[in-house]
Amino acid sequence: MAELTPRMKELVQPYLAGIEPYDPNFTPTRINLSANENTYPVPAGVREAIDAALAATPLNRYPDPMSNELRDELAAWHGVTRENTCVGNGGDELLYNYLLAFGGAGRTLLNCPPCFSEYAFFASLCQTEVRDVWRDPASFELDQAAVLAAAPECSLAIVTSPNNPTGDVAPLDFVAALCDACPGMVMVDEAYVEFADDSFGAATTAQGLIAEHPNLVILHTLSKAFGAAGTRLGYVIAAPEVIDAFAAIRQIYSVNVLSQAAALACVRARDAYAPVVAQVASERERELCALHAMAAEGLPVEAWPSAANFVLVRTPHATHVRERLRDEYSILVRDFSYAPGLADCLRITVGTPQENDEVLAAFAALVKEEM
Amino acid sequence: MAELTPRMKELVQPYLAGIEPYDPNFTPTRINLSANENTYPVPAGVREAIDAALAATPLNRYPDPMSNELRDELAAWHGVTRENTCVGNGGDELLYNYLLAFGGAGRTLLNCPPCFSEYAFFASLCQTEVRDVWRDPASFELDQAAVLAAAPECSLAIVTSPNNPTGDVAPLDFVAALCDACPGMVMVDEAYVEFADDSFGAATTAQGLIAEHPNLVILHTLSKAFGAAGTRLGYVIAAPEVIDAFAAIRQIYSVNVLSQAAALACVRARDAYAPVVAQVASERERELCALHAMAAEGLPVEAWPSAANFVLVRTPHATHVRERLRDEYSILVRDFSYAPGLADCLRITVGTPQENDEVLAAFAALVKEEM
Repeated sequence: MAELTPRMKELVQPYLAGIEPYDPNFTPTRINLSANENTYPVPAGVREAIDAALAATPLNRYPDPMSNELRDELAAWHGVTRENTCVGNGGDELLYNYLLAFGGAGRTLLNCPPCFSEYAFFASLCQTEVRDVWRDPASFELDQAAVLAAAPECSLAIVTSPNNPTGDVAPLDFVAALCDACPGMVMVDEAYVEFADDSFGAATTAQGLIAEHPNLVILHTLSKAFGAAGTRLGYVIAAPEVIDAFAAIRQIYSVNVLSQAAALACVRARDAYAPVVAQVASERERELCALHAMAAEGLPVEAWPSAANFVLVRTPHATHVRERLRDEYSILVRDFSYAPGLADCLRITVGTPQENDEVLAAFAALVKEEM
Repeated sequence: MAELTPRMKELVQPYLAGIEPYDPNFTPTRINLSANENTYPVPAGVREAIDAALAATPLNRYPDPMSNELRDELAAWHGVTRENTCVGNGGDELLYNYLLAFGGAGRTLLNCPPCFSEYAFFASLCQTEVRDVWRDPASFELDQAAVLAAAPECSLAIVTSPNNPTGDVAPLDFVAALCDACPGMVMVDEAYVEFADDSFGAATTAQGLIAEHPNLVILHTLSKAFGAAGTRLGYVIAAPEVIDAFAAIRQIYSVNVLSQAAALACVRARDAYAPVVAQVASERERELCALHAMAAEGLPVEAWPSAANFVLVRTPHATHVRERLRDEYSILVRDFSYAPGLADCLRITVGTPQENDEVLAAFAALVKEEM
């Protein structure tokens, strides 16, 4: 991303002149475990259903603005009504609109880093101040008391559960207390929730709290468990009045007809994804065992429990290890060394058993060589 | 669109509490000529190419953020380089980002109504003041002198060419003068330009002015001539430093893999769309002839020349005529009666010859009955 020219810095709004966009830091490799995508084959029959739906979709008409057929299917799945959900062009659009609607100049977002960096990016786009309440530097657990103490002074909050990139789940009693403590909206980003329990997230989600806490909004995406990152389909679940606020400020045609059709086919086939999600969770535990075994052997490796489709691991010279994984093994993982609180940390997406075997073997070999 | 609840009005940013989103005012009908979509069959072979491209697209990976393959094809078509173009989730995203980057609180958009209402909507979302310089109330021509007089006091400008819903083209010498007069950016929205001349817009576009006027940005869409409104694919052409500004503030994955693939297939097949575009232009002239003939027969019908894929027509009781078209003939056209400067005006999209025959006959019959 090139820095803006002096002329552009003068012409854009002053607060945007130094903006640094999100950088996925992507390099083509043989094995890509860098973006928490689902690397498993699409369940049998689902791709055919998607392709048939795509081929049957006229392209010349504007989309249904609210994606009502998809909304109804999502609502049926989650046991809510159409009026409780709004879809977006990926979770990104909904995150941005959340900050635009409920944040803004003179308002403060309560944020719990280390977490997804786009929260702060979108806050900056919307001139929203960010109040960081850092997680425990060793365990990465939420500092619940500090968050609840800061909440009354904040206009809105985001917590991630399971959290990216630390993998932990926000306890429901904490989420409820946060909703009580914050005078504005509270979003729980559950992008990874389907990996957190063996009921596809149903036992982990904070959704059940909405009835008692109408300031709660849950963010979901089809980018992770459903292996549909390319289609850009996110959705929120909240009280109808909150959905109306999302609907009022969105770009009405933000979700195109192809993504609507593909997403509908995916969500209809949700039972077919359950075995994939279960296997990812099982592979994640195997990977954590292997990493802990490396530590037990005396290798300088630390790994944290995870309820998502990735593991966070710390090792000396992590940036160099990551570069060597990329350049010598053509395996891409994400380097978080640059990020505050995440010195020497790499995030490794859980892939297929063979991908996981390869990254574990390569990682162990490199850690030994770097010692 | 429901009004926000009192609680939501308190929680959203104050300037958003009364926001009125764009309303396409859609009702399902047998013939839909309300949204300036392309109602012609997809050219032979193109849909097959699109479906093959879609079926070959993996869904589980995040999109190429900048859609570089598509950018290269668009650049080759327009005789520019990849660095001169940025794609977006429909023209809407690019319009919004234009207002977000170059507008904002304390800045003023120069607007020339009657024109596309989303300019003012996105300006309001970005807290940008709007300075309206109205077109001539009878001819709908731009008041060039007034626009150029206002330009030095404005931060950015949008002109539409051909204009929606009035159909006229902004003269290139005027666009050049506006670029000189405005201290900020000038956007020419050329959503309909392909219908304006028999070289697919190449003889009408203001693109040639960019070299001498680096504050000029041209907006295009695949929603009209390419019959791809459902895929949501817009793009801008501008100097590389302007493209960098668009790239810096966009949501990096805003254009999904399916829309990228479909758009690439469409643009590669652009020669196949030329006959469709020529037929739309020819049907537009036939429709205007028929409307002028009604006026010559003494019917209260006024119609304006158009370089786009629609005609604007004024007749007494237009709202009622439009409702009767919808309810008695199942033909949907757009009512602009509510819009300042467009009293009793309807906008009729140019459809297929048979659709045009039907709307003309029904319209003539209703106008006679309403006399």
